[in-house]
Amino acid sequence: MQVLEKLLDRIIQRVNINLRELGFDVTPYVHELAALNQMVKFYAFYGITPQHPINFQFMHSNLAGSYFLGRCRVTNSLLYKSDIRGDELKKKGAVFRFKQYEIPITRDEEIDIEDSLLIKTLVHCYSHDPESLEKFFIKDTIAMHYANIHGSPSDGCFLAPFSTVDLTTMHDCVVGEFSYIQAGEISHIKIDPGTVWIRSPEKFNFLYRFDSRQLENYIKFIPGSKPKGLLFDFVEDKKKDFERIFSLVNIETPRSVPVSATLDRYAVIKPHTKISDNVLVAQRAYLKNSWLGKGANAQENCYIINSRLEGCDVTAHGGKIIEADLGTKVFVGFNSFLRGSQDARLTIGKDSIVMPHTIIDISSPLNIPPGHIIWGLIRNEKDLKTNSLPIREFSGIETDFSIGNMIFEGSGSSFVSGFKDRIDHILDSNGAFFNGSENKGHAQKNQRISFNMIQPYPMGELKGLFPSITIQP
Amino acid sequence: MQVLEKLLDRIIQRVNINLRELGFDVTPYVHELAALNQMVKFYAFYGITPQHPINFQFMHSNLAGSYFLGRCRVTNSLLYKSDIRGDELKKKGAVFRFKQYEIPITRDEEIDIEDSLLIKTLVHCYSHDPESLEKFFIKDTIAMHYANIHGSPSDGCFLAPFSTVDLTTMHDCVVGEFSYIQAGEISHIKIDPGTVWIRSPEKFNFLYRFDSRQLENYIKFIPGSKPKGLLFDFVEDKKKDFERIFSLVNIETPRSVPVSATLDRYAVIKPHTKISDNVLVAQRAYLKNSWLGKGANAQENCYIINSRLEGCDVTAHGGKIIEADLGTKVFVGFNSFLRGSQDARLTIGKDSIVMPHTIIDISSPLNIPPGHIIWGLIRNEKDLKTNSLPIREFSGIETDFSIGNMIFEGSGSSFVSGFKDRIDHILDSNGAFFNGSENKGHAQKNQRISFNMIQPYPMGELKGLFPSITIQP
Repeated sequence: MQVLEKLLDRIIQRVNINLRELGFDVTPYVHELAALNQMVKFYAFYGITPQHPINFQFMHSNLAGSYFLGRCRVTNSLLYKSDIRGDELKKKGAVFRFKQYEIPITRDEEIDIEDSLLIKTLVHCYSHDPESLEKFFIKDTIAMHYANIHGSPSDGCFLAPFSTVDLTTMHDCVVGEFSYIQAGEISHIKIDPGTVWIRSPEKFNFLYRFDSRQLENYIKFIPGSKPKGLLFDFVEDKKKDFERIFSLVNIETPRSVPVSATLDRYAVIKPHTKISDNVLVAQRAYLKNSWLGKGANAQENCYIINSRLEGCDVTAHGGKIIEADLGTKVFVGFNSFLRGSQDARLTIGKDSIVMPHTIIDISSPLNIPPGHIIWGLIRNEKDLKTNSLPIREFSGIETDFSIGNMIFEGSGSSFVSGFKDRIDHILDSNGAFFNGSENKGHAQKNQRISFNMIQPYPMGELKGLFPSITIQP
Repeated sequence: MQVLEKLLDRIIQRVNINLRELGFDVTPYVHELAALNQMVKFYAFYGITPQHPINFQFMHSNLAGSYFLGRCRVTNSLLYKSDIRGDELKKKGAVFRFKQYEIPITRDEEIDIEDSLLIKTLVHCYSHDPESLEKFFIKDTIAMHYANIHGSPSDGCFLAPFSTVDLTTMHDCVVGEFSYIQAGEISHIKIDPGTVWIRSPEKFNFLYRFDSRQLENYIKFIPGSKPKGLLFDFVEDKKKDFERIFSLVNIETPRSVPVSATLDRYAVIKPHTKISDNVLVAQRAYLKNSWLGKGANAQENCYIINSRLEGCDVTAHGGKIIEADLGTKVFVGFNSFLRGSQDARLTIGKDSIVMPHTIIDISSPLNIPPGHIIWGLIRNEKDLKTNSLPIREFSGIETDFSIGNMIFEGSGSSFVSGFKDRIDHILDSNGAFFNGSENKGHAQKNQRISFNMIQPYPMGELKGLFPSITIQP
């Protein structure tokens, strides 16, 4: 295990060097948390399909529990139960459009993770950085529990638990707990916990900040200890339910899953869950006693419990929906936590947008009308008033607008149409619009995946380290 | 699946070209048997330990169910539920002694399988060919169910079900059902079913031939159909018991296994089986209601049922022991089938040698005294008289000797001491003589193996083919 320990020290050192300007030392956040003994126990898995270009290489790394699909390279890194998806990597010959530019892709895009530590972090590859089209790099980066790195590379960064970096290339940044950043490109900044920041230069700027004392009930991360709070406990409580699916080599898809839908073999499905046509249930999704209407999707690390989703609903990575009824085409963004209860059901009308990192946590029933956009922390009707707007009204914003803890600058219609286009892209790429022959997406393409299960050295000084493995067509 | 079909045709063609002189066409033996649909279903597994030099490469092959440990390369081959062991490969810098020669090993030995089809065939690597010390090749070779390729390379060969080629380099040969060949080097010959031939040039020659009509009860292989007979049915009947161990990713070793013993996680252990110190139970061994005394070993594909083995007993690859009591240090050779019953128990005294491919199938109790050597087909006391000798008496043979269907020429003592040395080597390398610190063998070294489980393309024209995988330290 000596080699694994040295590797951790080396990663910490490299990240600290990158973050020296911010005076941020990752050591106390990481050392107690990186449970090297746990890392020895879990296998990693790599998906084999004819649809995804295979090219996987890793060296001198631990990959415990990680999932890989598509072209990836991992070197000198520790990945603990992370999900690394590579099914939207750009292919050679494609053209990437960015503003007035049409940029040809010169070789198949590759995910490249080096000198990094990702603990239960999801990396998703739909990459948007026009400066790095063939290489999606995560270098000298430490990301903590249930963080998401989505659509853009990063180097020299620290991501706290339940943070999300979305379509945002980052250099030498620190992102606090439960913060959501979608800002194109940022460097050398430290983002406070509970910041929801969506910026499109010259178009708009959305900023919400959680009250720090309220946020601490949900997630709190003190250096040297495990993350705490409702969000963390909620996720940890469900861990046991995943044991069976990880202990078996292969799991048959139940007959009740339509031929146009995908239920990933690494998802947990508890009784009385309905999976309709064109539904995608991704790995590590957790469904219990819920109805997923046609074209709904349940992405990685999401939880849908005692709820009904009418159809074409998106539950993004890490979204949690408990005791709720969602109309058609409701979008629930990254890491959102929507918690009703049996006596206090949550209803969200069709065509609504629940922004990423929204918390709705109610003790009386709450009914959100159709066509609303919702953000921040909502515990009752009163909070709802300062944390939502009809989408039509939001689109009407032309310059500045502020309500509750939210500040908006720029064009509301540009903000709303950006969101709507993205929701349509997500539904389309996940196969929600498949008509039996056209518009195939992940729900139809990911149905049959073989998995290679790869394990580390069981003992000796290399204990916990994986041998070098190359998988190619 | 088209690529898999083409690969099978290509292998058949290559083997037929090698066997053209013997006028032997493998097509009808193979085409119906190579169940390509089955090959798609099973994963292969590769062992990771710090003790075994890792270097595994395969390309354009199907490996369904195969097991690998150590340095291997597989190209353009179909391996269906085969076991390929590489834990006795010679290492760079070692010296191989052969007669008056001391041959230095210039690089780590490698198993190299190319253009071959192995169906449930065990390959074991303790290689003895002084001409090919760094490469253990199996090229243009087709081997059928429960054949063993042990300790020597082969090219251009066909091995029928339950045949064994042991310490015998073969070129362009056909080996019939249940034949056992240990002859140094042979080429361009066809060996009839049921031949047991052990030859050491200028020292001795042992030849036994089963009566073909009697042998057919046990194994019969008609071109175009599955193998038939008691032996085949016996093995097929137990298949279901292996399902659980192959469906789980990891299996914990039961606490009742001593720290000095190894129970492979791919072995089947049914209730009331005692595993003593220094015992090795290899993958795909099957134990039920049996006692394995100190230092006994149960090798690949062996079955030990309702039996007691006192200690330091060897049950070689494919050996089957049912309702029997074996004294200490009884050797049961490859593919032997020893079947007593509740009312007709078989007893074999200590220090006895049951030669490879012996069948003892009794309906009244049979007691074989200590220190005997036993061969051929024995169904009663009468058969025993013509198919055994006290080892001391056998050692006394100086020129020719014949009894029953057996013919011996040369030095009996040389024959016996060769056997005894080999039994000691087997016990030693398997760890039977471990004293808590010295004399470690497989039983102590193989205890903790991680397995990579590798799977083929699930669909498309590459269906059933594995992607190219390289595993290195």
